[in-house]
Amino acid sequence: MRQSRRGQVDPFIVMDVMEAARKAEAQGRRIIHMEVGQPSTPAPQGARRALAAALDRPLGYTVALGLPELRQGIAGLYKRWYGLDLDPARVVVTPGSSGAFILAFSALFDAGARVALGEPGYPSYRQILRGMSLEPVGIPTRAEDRYQPRPGDLPTDAQGLILASPGNPSGTVLRREELAGLTARAAELGMNVISDEIYHGLDYGAGFHSALEVTDEVFVINSFSKYFSMTGWRVGWMVVPDGMIRTVERIAQNMFICPPHASQVAALAALDCVDEAEANLAVYAENCRLMLERLPKIGFSRIAPPEGAFYIYADVSELTTDSLAFAAEILEKAGVAVTPGLDFDPHRGAQTLRFSYAAGAAEIAEGLDRLAAFMAAR
Amino acid sequence: MRQSRRGQVDPFIVMDVMEAARKAEAQGRRIIHMEVGQPSTPAPQGARRALAAALDRPLGYTVALGLPELRQGIAGLYKRWYGLDLDPARVVVTPGSSGAFILAFSALFDAGARVALGEPGYPSYRQILRGMSLEPVGIPTRAEDRYQPRPGDLPTDAQGLILASPGNPSGTVLRREELAGLTARAAELGMNVISDEIYHGLDYGAGFHSALEVTDEVFVINSFSKYFSMTGWRVGWMVVPDGMIRTVERIAQNMFICPPHASQVAALAALDCVDEAEANLAVYAENCRLMLERLPKIGFSRIAPPEGAFYIYADVSELTTDSLAFAAEILEKAGVAVTPGLDFDPHRGAQTLRFSYAAGAAEIAEGLDRLAAFMAAR
Repeated sequence: MRQSRRGQVDPFIVMDVMEAARKAEAQGRRIIHMEVGQPSTPAPQGARRALAAALDRPLGYTVALGLPELRQGIAGLYKRWYGLDLDPARVVVTPGSSGAFILAFSALFDAGARVALGEPGYPSYRQILRGMSLEPVGIPTRAEDRYQPRPGDLPTDAQGLILASPGNPSGTVLRREELAGLTARAAELGMNVISDEIYHGLDYGAGFHSALEVTDEVFVINSFSKYFSMTGWRVGWMVVPDGMIRTVERIAQNMFICPPHASQVAALAALDCVDEAEANLAVYAENCRLMLERLPKIGFSRIAPPEGAFYIYADVSELTTDSLAFAAEILEKAGVAVTPGLDFDPHRGAQTLRFSYAAGAAEIAEGLDRLAAFMAAR
Repeated sequence: MRQSRRGQVDPFIVMDVMEAARKAEAQGRRIIHMEVGQPSTPAPQGARRALAAALDRPLGYTVALGLPELRQGIAGLYKRWYGLDLDPARVVVTPGSSGAFILAFSALFDAGARVALGEPGYPSYRQILRGMSLEPVGIPTRAEDRYQPRPGDLPTDAQGLILASPGNPSGTVLRREELAGLTARAAELGMNVISDEIYHGLDYGAGFHSALEVTDEVFVINSFSKYFSMTGWRVGWMVVPDGMIRTVERIAQNMFICPPHASQVAALAALDCVDEAEANLAVYAENCRLMLERLPKIGFSRIAPPEGAFYIYADVSELTTDSLAFAAEILEKAGVAVTPGLDFDPHRGAQTLRFSYAAGAAEIAEGLDRLAAFMAAR
């Protein structure tokens, strides 16, 4: 069979790291996981209980935009988190934030359109764009800007812009005035803006702002994966402008039919599990504090200030010019899995690493001990 | 914001029928549902029990291609159903068959490619293709060919071909030699073939054959939705040629991360719930028998022989030139929801209707009584 050109997307390097870690574990080694971008905790207990209680119902297709009460509940989150009155009709429940990106790109961009995004950034933006015949346009960001783009950095010949706050891998947050400046400049340039807010709720004091606080002309994407600890459930959402609801609904009806019903039932209950989500957050906050205290002493001192999410992005250019080999060495010698920066920045990522601190407190502490011993012996 | 051209897909007409039915029900009317393409039964009890027992596990991301034991189990189904030895490595678990189509189209076709499909056919083929900047090329089929394309019908300037057996809305099955003839002709023409086998397992005596029985150079798409009665769970699968596994894996990693984990756990157990699936099939078989016995007497005599799935496609050209208005009249006067053919055939569907018999036996019997009274009074 003939393969398409657009289907030739780059491999996910972190997957190779995970596979190497799995093999080491299969040989009996204990590996500390600082590579994975997901909580080690299950979905909130209330969410799992709600699903268990619903298992006698048929759980057939829901309407394409998602269960009405879930859309209502998500709208309520915008009141709780940002003080915004959001019309639930603008909330689209999606099969994970991944599904939201597919919907957004289909609704907003024709084949050949150019979509700008900050580097470093979440690798799948780039690959989903390519898979849909769109052209990713990287914006190199600076450490002094906390790896976030400035309005003056936006290309003048692109049709779209993806913002991410807190960023992955940087963990850095766009301030309200930064969101305002970037979305205003994008509007001047005729760019459609997509704001990825999947790590909202996970912040360490800086707070977080939705792009919806500064404009309604934006696609905002979020998910139950991170704050609500529901990665494998594949349920996310998207807030779209009034005039886009019908278009997105038709695409969703055809491309997805509906998000997984069982996951929607669990997600609805998760919205009320604030105590459990906040307890998880407290673990990440302590992990973050410990990472910030110890990583610089260990030898990883050039790091972006982690204001949210559960990542630390380190410039290791003084230590290596080959982050892939360096990560392999860390896995081999220290038994700690970390992600080479090449996933996030195809240009400068050979000299960066991402450390995730989504694991439990004991695992993070042990990982830091191992990293310290490894670096001391190097 | 500027909308894309490709995002302007057609509305799903059946959704409007469902909404009209919902409104009638909200006003207190009892409506018989012959419009929906899903079982009224829940997921098999064994599947729900397996999930209930797994709810204490984290259920985070699985690998992109799906749980290894599920891929193994699906491969086993090819032995059970077709006597084929299928390498589980070629099985890709997907977020419903919908997700499988997105993966297949991304992996096989670049923007602008032409993909042929029989008319009448499942409407979302056409809409997903458009949403991905591909061009659907309709092949008008004939009643005397059971609404399936012949090898000689294939366009010579298309890059892809979608086959569907049992067909939706026709319910008709491609024989093994027909599959061989169509795939051989497509290979001559350099077309990539996608075989939609989502209704396999649901047959009424004619048997069913996978395209994998006649060639390995094909993408075969299936799902737990129909035979296993798990529509809302969004878990399907795709069998791909050896040389395509890595490409599809990379696209899946980026576009979906993984299929819903909870649904995969349920699906794995569903594979063993043969008795329950066969009991559902017995209900459809009796419904089918009743429909075939009574519909012609009622006045719907020009129907394709329903050999599988749970649909009957009727030519109503002697009764109407506006299937949309006719379906609305049937809903209004008889309280039976049926689907106008325009969803399946944009050209000739104004003179056809699809009747689904996926509902329970009593509901189907009452629906037929109502249709008889309606037609007698017309």
